[in-house]
Amino acid sequence: MTERDTPERGFERAEFEARTARAQALMADRGLEAMLLTTEAEVRYYSGFHTPFWQSPTRPWFLIVPAAGRPIAVIPGIGAACMGITWVTDIRTWSAPQPADDGISLLSETLHEVAGARGKIGTPMGHETHVRMPAADFDRLRARVGAERIVDATGIVRTQRMVKSEAEIAKVAYICAIASDAFEAFPDFVAMGDSERQAFAKMRIELLRRGADEVPYLVGSSGPGGFADVIKQPTDRILGAGDMIMLDTGAIFDGYYCDFDRNYAFGQATDEMRRAYDVVYAATEAGIATARPGATSADLFRAMAGVMAKSGAGEGDVGRLGHGLGMQLTEWPSHTAADETVLEPGMVITIEPGVSYGDGFNMLHEENIVVREGGPQLLTGRAPAELPVIA
Amino acid sequence: MTERDTPERGFERAEFEARTARAQALMADRGLEAMLLTTEAEVRYYSGFHTPFWQSPTRPWFLIVPAAGRPIAVIPGIGAACMGITWVTDIRTWSAPQPADDGISLLSETLHEVAGARGKIGTPMGHETHVRMPAADFDRLRARVGAERIVDATGIVRTQRMVKSEAEIAKVAYICAIASDAFEAFPDFVAMGDSERQAFAKMRIELLRRGADEVPYLVGSSGPGGFADVIKQPTDRILGAGDMIMLDTGAIFDGYYCDFDRNYAFGQATDEMRRAYDVVYAATEAGIATARPGATSADLFRAMAGVMAKSGAGEGDVGRLGHGLGMQLTEWPSHTAADETVLEPGMVITIEPGVSYGDGFNMLHEENIVVREGGPQLLTGRAPAELPVIA
Repeated sequence: MTERDTPERGFERAEFEARTARAQALMADRGLEAMLLTTEAEVRYYSGFHTPFWQSPTRPWFLIVPAAGRPIAVIPGIGAACMGITWVTDIRTWSAPQPADDGISLLSETLHEVAGARGKIGTPMGHETHVRMPAADFDRLRARVGAERIVDATGIVRTQRMVKSEAEIAKVAYICAIASDAFEAFPDFVAMGDSERQAFAKMRIELLRRGADEVPYLVGSSGPGGFADVIKQPTDRILGAGDMIMLDTGAIFDGYYCDFDRNYAFGQATDEMRRAYDVVYAATEAGIATARPGATSADLFRAMAGVMAKSGAGEGDVGRLGHGLGMQLTEWPSHTAADETVLEPGMVITIEPGVSYGDGFNMLHEENIVVREGGPQLLTGRAPAELPVIA
Repeated sequence: MTERDTPERGFERAEFEARTARAQALMADRGLEAMLLTTEAEVRYYSGFHTPFWQSPTRPWFLIVPAAGRPIAVIPGIGAACMGITWVTDIRTWSAPQPADDGISLLSETLHEVAGARGKIGTPMGHETHVRMPAADFDRLRARVGAERIVDATGIVRTQRMVKSEAEIAKVAYICAIASDAFEAFPDFVAMGDSERQAFAKMRIELLRRGADEVPYLVGSSGPGGFADVIKQPTDRILGAGDMIMLDTGAIFDGYYCDFDRNYAFGQATDEMRRAYDVVYAATEAGIATARPGATSADLFRAMAGVMAKSGAGEGDVGRLGHGLGMQLTEWPSHTAADETVLEPGMVITIEPGVSYGDGFNMLHEENIVVREGGPQLLTGRAPAELPVIA
């Protein structure tokens, strides 16, 4: 196990002040008097409210960013103590659940106070977002405050959250290093004769022992020569000679994810497996090399797709060749031919090419990087250049 | 570690047929030609589609229950193989993400095919639900198919999901037994001098070693004599003599949750701590005894609240004294004074009274039970009758 310093938990007050000030500047540009946030990542980003209690779908949670001053929380009473340790001081609660009026009156009143009778209120309604409250309540809220006043604010949270602070990057880097170590040790604790389920369970415990807080995402597949399904749960299938296995993990440190996979063969690897591995490895190299400030997600896509097309490999149906990463397993942007997002220093992204080969098999590689002025900084320990074979 | 049989993974085809037939009967009662589902639990309930890939917020997933026949999946291509191993055979895919039209055309066409030009389409829009797709896309969908045709179908999924099959109960029972064993062993692997974070990390690994698939929810608190916050993450606080600690866990087996907590004192317990513990223990007894078919959630609330009021204890601000449990950490109903849900055999619920005491402290107890004809069946190993003290 590598010795490394554990990053500080949480963030300095100044970081929340800066995030809120930036949001308020972007709100001013768009003529918004308030921004309403309802999802875990957004509420946490501006307030620091951090709890797995979001697992319970029962209660909605609201955070309002006003045009000036700190965010205001409108939340169920059960969360008051947990919100009380953040920098938010204006915490308004109701006793939830209360299906007849689950915070809607309190939220409407607060929005009226903050945005007046006519001010525009932004809330994320665009791609990769959802409104985390009953749709009927959201309709009711819009009817009450005036539907035309509630506009899409996806652009604000997208712009802000895509570029990470050094404190955020340190958390992603830490969990990437932990998972890299765990993948490096994988051949030592998994062997032929284990079931997929046993192999995945061992990997989960290994990640926790090495310092991951949680492992919300651990999927993969195995099969003789390869596999089709890249988002599958493990089964009782026994790992044997000639198998390929892939594990893709999203582990968390202090609310920040890594997201990358590794591939292994058992016993021996066929030429077909090695060829597919080499093509995706080369495509990953091309993706990493292209990830400089000023390049676009589409540029990354073309760099990777070009390498794979030249090899004659099939495209697969993953839909993109990587994405943003941070408080969520996947974030904006998406490396597709259509995504013209310009890379900036501080963006944390995955480089994730995939090919189809052989009998409907898919192979993915993935690395996590930070875009830097001087060039890409790898957060994951680079995958081996040759397909590793577990004896 | 207790020897026990692991329940079968997944469900028989007949269970999905029965769920779908029941939904279709409830849809017919309400004059619905189709039901549209967008969230993990609902899509899984009717299809069997089971993947942690929902952790990624990027792509929407749609399942349509038609008036007759099997559900139809309208999903990103990356999920086709995983959906292909379920009983769903009509799987329509698009290459997501595609922000300009992320499945909305394909979904509209499919709804038109299934519900015709005028048929009503239900989707869950009520309490404890949300629509998992961008709000702007949901508005676009409603505009395209006719907003008045899309109506709330919360009642259908609520009615169905509240009453569990024996196969579902077996999964909850199994994870409850695993977590009960882990809590029983807790005093053997945690000691004064550990930090909260270490204690919680040990508990998480213990649950996994004993057979939990995942531990998405593990919160709690510690403090001298008690604590206020019951949904907190662990900190670096060191556990010492005179502390109370509470751990509340939602661990998963095959997609089904347990949800219960346990309290321990370190070194010694004060009379105040013991008194609060005894009151909540007695309230739990009253709640369990009341949980018979025909009683309501409000009856459970009154039985528990009555015991606590008689003791003079404060109410706390949790908002309810228990809830349903299954594919989600919390489900309908809520044990509040206002919830008149009638208990039926097969309902899996928590009994979860809480009091405030001392200097703003809260104490919660929680057990998980099945409502049975003959009376309640405890799934959790009943908490000790006296506050356990870890020496």
